[in-house]
Amino acid sequence: MVKLIALYKKPADAEAQAAFEKHYFDIHMPLVAKIPGMLKSEVAKINTFAGQESKYFLLTEMFFDNVDKLNEGMASPEGKAAGRDLMSFAKEYVEMSIGDVI
Amino acid sequence: MVKLIALYKKPADAEAQAAFEKHYFDIHMPLVAKIPGMLKSEVAKINTFAGQESKYFLLTEMFFDNVDKLNEGMASPEGKAAGRDLMSFAKEYVEMSIGDVI
Repeated sequence: MVKLIALYKKPADAEAQAAFEKHYFDIHMPLVAKIPGMLKSEVAKINTFAGQESKYFLLTEMFFDNVDKLNEGMASPEGKAAGRDLMSFAKEYVEMSIGDVI
Repeated sequence: MVKLIALYKKPADAEAQAAFEKHYFDIHMPLVAKIPGMLKSEVAKINTFAGQESKYFLLTEMFFDNVDKLNEGMASPEGKAAGRDLMSFAKEYVEMSIGDVI
């Protein structure tokens, strides 16, 4: 299994964060849910552990059977729509990678 | 559910990475597996997505029912042993945080 990992850096202030979250949960995640081949997604809000302040505030993981299914999903019309939406509101915040679950 | 999230930055070169991985899989993860209250753990090797090079090479998540269980687990002798081991080989690489799964 593989997962597409999105780490989101904290917006600059509470107002920017609220606007980000509204778009993220109301618009972006419903688009993500339509990506073909995605088995499940998991979203977590990031908090401090042991006094270590993280620069991230959100971690999203989108699971696929393998990297081919992930690439097919992201290249589909639904995957492209989610990607376009992401770039419209989160380009400066998001860091993406692929995780090979071992 | 909450998860303790460990993001590991890439060691400087292939030799350092091999030594890191040997300690991580042979010594560290067996210690982590003993932490009381941990429901499951998931380790993923990080790869590039869409040409974005990540500064991380490993993502580990350790799941607990709630933040109290997480803190109890980490404060237990087994949790402290895993924490001490982590600091012995990964202090310069690891970034830790808590994820509230939503």
